[in-house]
Amino acid sequence: MRNWIVTETPFRPTQLNHLETVFTIGNGYLGVRGAFEEGYPGEQPLVLIHGLFNQPEGAEVSELAGVPAWTGLELAFDGARFRLDQGELLGYERTLDLRSGLLRRAVLWRIPGQTVLRLVFERFASLARPHILALRVQATALDGDMMIEAAGGLGDADRSHWTDIEVGRGAPQQAFLQARAAQSGYRLGMAAHFDAGPDIRPEAGSRPTFKFMARRGQTVTLTKFIAIHTSRDAARPLDAARAALGTAVDLGYDALYRESAEAWEATWHASDVEIEGDDFAQLAIRFALYHLLIAAPRDDERVSIGAKTLSGRGYKGHVFWDTELFALAPLTFTQPALARNLLMYRYHLLPGARTKAVNNGFEGAMYPWESTDTGEETTPKWGAPLPPDGRRERIWTGDREIHISADIAYAMRQYWQVSGDDDFMARYGAEVILDTAVFWGSRVEYNAAQDRYEISHVIGPDEYHEDVNNSVFTNVMARRHLQTALEILAWLERHAPAQAGALRDRLALTPARLEHWRDVIAKMYIPRDGDLLVEFDGFFDLEPVDVAAYWPRTRSLQHIYGVPATNRTQIIKQADVVMLMALLGDAFGPPEMQRANWDVYAPRCDHGSSLSAAIHGLVAARLGMSDQAYALWRQAAGVDLEDNKGNAADGAHAAAAGGLWQAIVLGFAGLRQAGDGISLTPNLPPHWRRLRFRVMHRGRLRDVTITPDGVTIA
Amino acid sequence: MRNWIVTETPFRPTQLNHLETVFTIGNGYLGVRGAFEEGYPGEQPLVLIHGLFNQPEGAEVSELAGVPAWTGLELAFDGARFRLDQGELLGYERTLDLRSGLLRRAVLWRIPGQTVLRLVFERFASLARPHILALRVQATALDGDMMIEAAGGLGDADRSHWTDIEVGRGAPQQAFLQARAAQSGYRLGMAAHFDAGPDIRPEAGSRPTFKFMARRGQTVTLTKFIAIHTSRDAARPLDAARAALGTAVDLGYDALYRESAEAWEATWHASDVEIEGDDFAQLAIRFALYHLLIAAPRDDERVSIGAKTLSGRGYKGHVFWDTELFALAPLTFTQPALARNLLMYRYHLLPGARTKAVNNGFEGAMYPWESTDTGEETTPKWGAPLPPDGRRERIWTGDREIHISADIAYAMRQYWQVSGDDDFMARYGAEVILDTAVFWGSRVEYNAAQDRYEISHVIGPDEYHEDVNNSVFTNVMARRHLQTALEILAWLERHAPAQAGALRDRLALTPARLEHWRDVIAKMYIPRDGDLLVEFDGFFDLEPVDVAAYWPRTRSLQHIYGVPATNRTQIIKQADVVMLMALLGDAFGPPEMQRANWDVYAPRCDHGSSLSAAIHGLVAARLGMSDQAYALWRQAAGVDLEDNKGNAADGAHAAAAGGLWQAIVLGFAGLRQAGDGISLTPNLPPHWRRLRFRVMHRGRLRDVTITPDGVTIA
Repeated sequence: MRNWIVTETPFRPTQLNHLETVFTIGNGYLGVRGAFEEGYPGEQPLVLIHGLFNQPEGAEVSELAGVPAWTGLELAFDGARFRLDQGELLGYERTLDLRSGLLRRAVLWRIPGQTVLRLVFERFASLARPHILALRVQATALDGDMMIEAAGGLGDADRSHWTDIEVGRGAPQQAFLQARAAQSGYRLGMAAHFDAGPDIRPEAGSRPTFKFMARRGQTVTLTKFIAIHTSRDAARPLDAARAALGTAVDLGYDALYRESAEAWEATWHASDVEIEGDDFAQLAIRFALYHLLIAAPRDDERVSIGAKTLSGRGYKGHVFWDTELFALAPLTFTQPALARNLLMYRYHLLPGARTKAVNNGFEGAMYPWESTDTGEETTPKWGAPLPPDGRRERIWTGDREIHISADIAYAMRQYWQVSGDDDFMARYGAEVILDTAVFWGSRVEYNAAQDRYEISHVIGPDEYHEDVNNSVFTNVMARRHLQTALEILAWLERHAPAQAGALRDRLALTPARLEHWRDVIAKMYIPRDGDLLVEFDGFFDLEPVDVAAYWPRTRSLQHIYGVPATNRTQIIKQADVVMLMALLGDAFGPPEMQRANWDVYAPRCDHGSSLSAAIHGLVAARLGMSDQAYALWRQAAGVDLEDNKGNAADGAHAAAAGGLWQAIVLGFAGLRQAGDGISLTPNLPPHWRRLRFRVMHRGRLRDVTITPDGVTIA
Repeated sequence: MRNWIVTETPFRPTQLNHLETVFTIGNGYLGVRGAFEEGYPGEQPLVLIHGLFNQPEGAEVSELAGVPAWTGLELAFDGARFRLDQGELLGYERTLDLRSGLLRRAVLWRIPGQTVLRLVFERFASLARPHILALRVQATALDGDMMIEAAGGLGDADRSHWTDIEVGRGAPQQAFLQARAAQSGYRLGMAAHFDAGPDIRPEAGSRPTFKFMARRGQTVTLTKFIAIHTSRDAARPLDAARAALGTAVDLGYDALYRESAEAWEATWHASDVEIEGDDFAQLAIRFALYHLLIAAPRDDERVSIGAKTLSGRGYKGHVFWDTELFALAPLTFTQPALARNLLMYRYHLLPGARTKAVNNGFEGAMYPWESTDTGEETTPKWGAPLPPDGRRERIWTGDREIHISADIAYAMRQYWQVSGDDDFMARYGAEVILDTAVFWGSRVEYNAAQDRYEISHVIGPDEYHEDVNNSVFTNVMARRHLQTALEILAWLERHAPAQAGALRDRLALTPARLEHWRDVIAKMYIPRDGDLLVEFDGFFDLEPVDVAAYWPRTRSLQHIYGVPATNRTQIIKQADVVMLMALLGDAFGPPEMQRANWDVYAPRCDHGSSLSAAIHGLVAARLGMSDQAYALWRQAAGVDLEDNKGNAADGAHAAAAGGLWQAIVLGFAGLRQAGDGISLTPNLPPHWRRLRFRVMHRGRLRDVTITPDGVTIA
């Protein structure tokens, strides 16, 4: 079990909210932050279910509506309420077993009177039964008899989201809740079973409650099962929850856990990355994959992974390019069925993207920068009020960060190439890629004086510059998108001519439009100065800043300089031209050209976003700078585990997690697709003795092991 | 530089005092806690010099007298005083490079006004020049010009210790201080040089002060050199300090650092332990060795390593058995000259031990439980006042924990066997071993009814039981001590008959006395029940406690149960019979007997002392239980690095540090002396891919490498 366990010991109250994120459990259907059963001052408990968006009254945009925090338990011993900040905390250890998804907390606690007891809490979200959660407390009175009182209900529904709330009891050990999301109308059904073993009878009351004596040395077990359904997955959510609950109770805690642990084992068989020679890296990559795997919908192709997964309120659960260009790759390469689900989410939301295009005066499909369940643009226009005067910053990304459509096309093409899933491409992907190509055809601006196409007033990945012309990332990705569209259409003509014909008709892919695309491809303006791409028009006229001098900073340079001043400098928020290098690989240009661009852009980067460091690490590894690559990777690996950007409390960073995997497999291992197979060009960090991972390439499982002595592919 | 660096990032103010201990620098002459140059609320700065004991007025015993904290610097930028809790802390990284002994702190800080600056502080205690310390600050104004004011004096002398304090300036950039320890009379001389580079002239005033402008982007360097002498090492301490300072200033910071780093390199060449496959273990063993190496006197054989080294006020700097049986072994095996210094400390203090024997009505030499510079017993009789009523606990260890004399004899014999240093044994060691044997001969009590010797009213290593009869550890060690005495005397007769004769006369080693020793050896009562040793008379009549049930505890069971209640149970504070197993090895008994004793005693141990876990790990490793051994070792490794006992703020745990090395070399590697050579019986933790260390055995350097495939000795 080495390097599979994330541990907190002793209790770290100053990191309470950060660790709630770290210790999130989930199963692709929902996420449960690691708040304590008994509550704690300042806690942020949260249970989020995929797709359950709702727009509270007065809010500008919709957000994931938290459902009641089912993990709550009221425990009292000899009349004293159990809380970590009461009585005497004599010992504490919390562990998350990444391998089986089990969160466990052991507490040695002295009742404010005298008796010392040990409490062992466990919880898991079944990976085998997405609607089932289980929680268990084992309490042992160590040096005297004690009276135990325990009450375990379902928790309260947040009335800013939920209406028509109905709660009640079924059997004496059960409770239920149903509610309706006020704006979106989603219905929720939750059912709970809470018992203290076969011999203990519940008390009367509004929720399952027990009161009984435990003898010195005796261990009593309190078990809570929860079932959750929503109208997104069942016509009658409460009935479905009750039925699922019945089955779970019949199976019992141990069998449910075994079944879930087996599902985890199968998942890790495909997705685990083994690193020898670096304990932190080993734990960190598993931790990152764990958070991706609990966030990735397994049975639902109408939801996707939000920027902060289901582990926090950050970005309101909205989906960004983080998913397609950062989080997706490990799934594309190791869990293609899950990757497909995520891409299908975009397919299903084509209508929203078409609406956005129309609303902005363009043709085709223009994906929103922030996406929820509707496919509409849900980027708020205004930020939160800022001190001292409550001023709000205008948020421009929803208007201008248009590269998202090209990013989605890139991810779909990559998935198709890696998986060989022609069915997906023919039936779904092609339509997305072609209709977003239609958008680009209408979005580009012809500059007659220069006989070239330009794209003005955009935001590239470098969001420190909020209104630029000819973002080289955007222009190159748009051109490439159009090339991909033409390729896909040609492939479709051969592979599924009827489908091609239907799309030509539906999307009006006239010869004139295709000719226009070819013209755009030929004449797209790519700002450059010899080998050096120019991030956007006029970038090098901005004030240069010695970014490296601002060491060791934990705050961003944007924070240090302020937003308007940063905008006037060459400080880059995150991988931008370097992101293009990561995506294009050899197609970016010859090695000298890659190195020339790296040398200019990497030193200017603030890494003001968690998306940045791992991607830089990937590119540095490909360029053979393995020490620098490792330092960058190490920085990215601390985003959630060590909270090194100070915002992990808002939720786990899905993009950073995916970036870590990409840097390892596409960077350090140097995996490339080569014809019908794969090739590897390793540049491992010097201290890594062995790297092993699996990828599924066109239906074949490849087991890759890299050591300083060489590469083996099985 | 992998696994050589201890890092704090970001700033962890809640661990301020713990990290002052961790980041202590030193050179065997003095230790400097890692308090900040600019001060911080709640800080505990401390500079301790070996041997500089003084008994403050009203105190029960003497303690190491802290000398002025020379690390202080007053820095102001644009008129604002630099402090981490003022202005805005934008970044922070503190590193201790164990390889070269350099402590560095980088801070990115915004002046309460606007300008952002970077400060890089470095300090080291020269390992090449024990009286020299250096500190450097490099300040860079990153986004504007700024006015710098810097004042660097010597700090204030603690008036509870120091009198006749005289301070003054020499050259404009210099300051000096001399003082006399009020009770012990030691004299102190300190001289400081502080400069801001050749072009900046100091201001007038009572200490070196500079005020000047720095341009945007310019890095200014402030350098402080300190020289310290005391009347223990120079007749005229201030003159000596001034002379040393002059040389240091002439050499300059860089050359001083290089020279010190080279001395560190040579030291590590002998003492480093390399572990592959476990990053934490690698860092932890180096960290432990670093703290031992900065605490071990290099040029002084009249001082020894206190229980908390020179890194904190814990135990007042007093020397316990921690040194001989825990901290010494790594020095005995890798730095024999340093080990010899520590043993000579005991030789020089024989007069004090003789006085203690007389005062207690015994013959020979009886070493004090707590030792300072006088050799007198300096264990306080009363503990600190306890809440709520200020009651003080009587401390009995000074009266009853008499095994210390046998421990010292054990360590001297081990040093002699490992080093082959006959000169030491003949001229010094033999006298200690023989005169303490005289003590044992007078201390044992003859029980005529049973025709056996007993030792009543003692405390063994298990200090939870404060008045026991026939502590098996004590009785076995006393018997062994007498055997050693006879062996050494016989060896001396052959090797240095004149010396033997002199000792016979001086110590009155009459035939009758030697015959008495043989009788004691033959008839010493060893409480046992078959193979099972009995910790002391009546141990198994005490209340049994399921120690393992009190998991996961960070507080001791003594804390949980209370002192009197614990005394009535079989809870063991720390390795006692298991300590005997560690010391005796094969001589303890056959493997089944070792295992039988382990199975009884290990589960009863609270590990209520930092001395316990590593020794248990050592024994578990020898018994082939490598998983359990590793878990115990891991626990011991967290005592200072992770503060897992909550008391690292009081100073580094010398015994735990030595125990970590012992568990690795004598446990996991299974090193034994075999005839004139060494043998190895490895039981490595399963995940350790490679272990390498060096030992100096009888003048031959052995380079040992152990992998799962086998052992090589070069």
